[in-house]
Amino acid sequence: MAHPVSPLAPKSYPDLPEIAGVRFATAEAGIKYKNRTDVLLMAFDEGTTAAGVLTRSKCSSAAVDWCRANLPSGGMARGLVVNSGNANAFTGAKGRQSVELTAQYAANALGCSTSEIFLASTGVIGEPLDAGKFAGVLDTMADRLGAGSWMDPAKAIMTTDTFPKLSGAIFEIDGVEVRINGIAKGSGMIAPDMATMLSFVVTDMPIAAPVLQDLLAQHVQTSFNAITVDSDTSTSDTLLAFATGKANVEPLTTPDDPRAVAFGEALKDVLFDLAIQVVRDGEGATKQVSVHVEGATSDQSAFRIAKAIADSPLVKTAIAGEDANWGRVVMAVGKAGEPADRDKLAIRFGDLLVAKDGERAAVYDEAATSAYMKGEDLELTVSLGLGEGRATVYTCDLTHGYITINGDYRS
Amino acid sequence: MAHPVSPLAPKSYPDLPEIAGVRFATAEAGIKYKNRTDVLLMAFDEGTTAAGVLTRSKCSSAAVDWCRANLPSGGMARGLVVNSGNANAFTGAKGRQSVELTAQYAANALGCSTSEIFLASTGVIGEPLDAGKFAGVLDTMADRLGAGSWMDPAKAIMTTDTFPKLSGAIFEIDGVEVRINGIAKGSGMIAPDMATMLSFVVTDMPIAAPVLQDLLAQHVQTSFNAITVDSDTSTSDTLLAFATGKANVEPLTTPDDPRAVAFGEALKDVLFDLAIQVVRDGEGATKQVSVHVEGATSDQSAFRIAKAIADSPLVKTAIAGEDANWGRVVMAVGKAGEPADRDKLAIRFGDLLVAKDGERAAVYDEAATSAYMKGEDLELTVSLGLGEGRATVYTCDLTHGYITINGDYRS
Repeated sequence: MAHPVSPLAPKSYPDLPEIAGVRFATAEAGIKYKNRTDVLLMAFDEGTTAAGVLTRSKCSSAAVDWCRANLPSGGMARGLVVNSGNANAFTGAKGRQSVELTAQYAANALGCSTSEIFLASTGVIGEPLDAGKFAGVLDTMADRLGAGSWMDPAKAIMTTDTFPKLSGAIFEIDGVEVRINGIAKGSGMIAPDMATMLSFVVTDMPIAAPVLQDLLAQHVQTSFNAITVDSDTSTSDTLLAFATGKANVEPLTTPDDPRAVAFGEALKDVLFDLAIQVVRDGEGATKQVSVHVEGATSDQSAFRIAKAIADSPLVKTAIAGEDANWGRVVMAVGKAGEPADRDKLAIRFGDLLVAKDGERAAVYDEAATSAYMKGEDLELTVSLGLGEGRATVYTCDLTHGYITINGDYRS
Repeated sequence: MAHPVSPLAPKSYPDLPEIAGVRFATAEAGIKYKNRTDVLLMAFDEGTTAAGVLTRSKCSSAAVDWCRANLPSGGMARGLVVNSGNANAFTGAKGRQSVELTAQYAANALGCSTSEIFLASTGVIGEPLDAGKFAGVLDTMADRLGAGSWMDPAKAIMTTDTFPKLSGAIFEIDGVEVRINGIAKGSGMIAPDMATMLSFVVTDMPIAAPVLQDLLAQHVQTSFNAITVDSDTSTSDTLLAFATGKANVEPLTTPDDPRAVAFGEALKDVLFDLAIQVVRDGEGATKQVSVHVEGATSDQSAFRIAKAIADSPLVKTAIAGEDANWGRVVMAVGKAGEPADRDKLAIRFGDLLVAKDGERAAVYDEAATSAYMKGEDLELTVSLGLGEGRATVYTCDLTHGYITINGDYRS
């Protein structure tokens, strides 16, 4: 399982600041991995609000079902338990018992009710998860809770990730410093449809749960919902946000509060940064690609076309081969099933126009385009010339590395 | 471009019989390849009817547009010109001029009108196709027309195919022997949505064009439209059927004629055989997989779920790794967006039950399942337990071979 670190890994990691009202600990519960942490316990002070976006998979995991049931009940959180190594997905009644027992252990350790505990699991699908592994572990973790390095929780939730993913924002609201810290994991089975594999964001902003939920739902669209590694949507996608309310500002209680925009922008930056890190750790990735579609009949139509391009194995292998194969881009536009007029289509790699009005551009420069394709961060823009709709989807290339990682995952 | 022959290639090829009313020739026009044939000319006797199913891509090729315009005009055919090496797709006004000129050359050579000429092109997208290459070539081909080996046309239309694809049926209608011969090409960019890359079927059955069209549209659903190699729908998908009418039986003029069923079954067998050969020549394929979905709320819903499984890179790489990773099958069911109840789901590999009622089956036998996965032809069955809907989609695994073939296609 030890794959080489992605060549797109960040050169350095942010040193995230403490956020008042949250403490955490990690531990080795021995769920699947050896000699590494695989459980994260976060404890939130009383008054912490919660919001979340969960997978739309019809086969969602037991932990996702648990969060879905708990989120509407007041949106209050006291604890979060995350494990890696086992997704507790497709585990039937055993899975439901396992999440109930885990929540009970955590609630006992933290002195709260089970409805204030949120859970997330990631790893192998279909293996029963023995909640007994958490029994003693959560108690000792509760004794060790602190405000240490956020690198620890980021590492404890990794599976096939080759680097930990952290991001943060510090900004002012009413002249008071407010903080948002976030972590994420994800590398394969990435085509989030409401959320990524797993991501957790904590802020000290006092904010009502429904407002937090609104902002999360809004900004997930252009971050986690705009990425794809392999078009495969996970059973376990979970994005949870917790607001401890410890920043000394007036609470944000309605979406009409003008401060919601500033907070939302900072939240968006953190979500976007984490989402891009997931793409850059895409299984086997050697290049990051931003697929921009403009001139579509609607934003939704633009998104579907961008997704068809970003999901296309032929486009992704061409990019891996540093080949500006815009014929495959045309193919992907054509298969998306959305309004498109072949003879109005223009395609750019970076700033280089390669196709225009439905054929190769007169200014097409093969040498310049080939040179551009050798880069690590590529921009691909399709102009449909039909309307004002636009969208961007972020993806990576498809390489031998992906096959190696996934062709012998369990065996 | 010389990739190793697929390990799933047929051990022998059928020796298709002559079909009265059709003659053909192949030639080297030097469009892209060297030292191999790349043009096919078929000539049909007067009275030949035609039907066709064409790609639903919004960026269809110039030849597809030509066929789409000609098909409704009486459904009569006198000639077919197919070239490999250049798809004449996304070539703008030049592409339209090229098909008009090619049709004119062919009509002159065969002494018919251009509306009786059908065209198909396959190969690189976006390169203008110089119709001048066909000028003298089609004339000399017209002089050489004959009823030789069908292996020749099957070879002339290949691109990344590693083996030629032929199939035929001989059956009786009203006590008279009737014949259907078919050829196909296709290996990558295979997720036909109305037809495959290219396939041509010729019969001596006297059959009215609308009836032939009905039968073709019906049987393409369970053959070419039920296969996927890489989820990528081509700009050039074309399936054409020609009926010379030379068999000495009463013409089939209405779909209500009970003989339409017998003819349709034979047609279906040929289309299905050719479609499966395309899957077995899927780029990099080492295993063929039949994905059966049953118990869905409708056949259409079953098809969408089967397609989601067959298109999933994670399912396909697991199969390449001979890993019965049914967790990934659950994932793919979940992402299809169709009605599914996780806790009613059952999954079989071959006859081996691996999951039942939403969790690993009590009878699951890892050793037996692993042994089964080593086979070359795999059956994967998902039972949803919701209704009577069923469908099957045929695919292949996703291997390093696919990346090798597509990661350096043009460079």
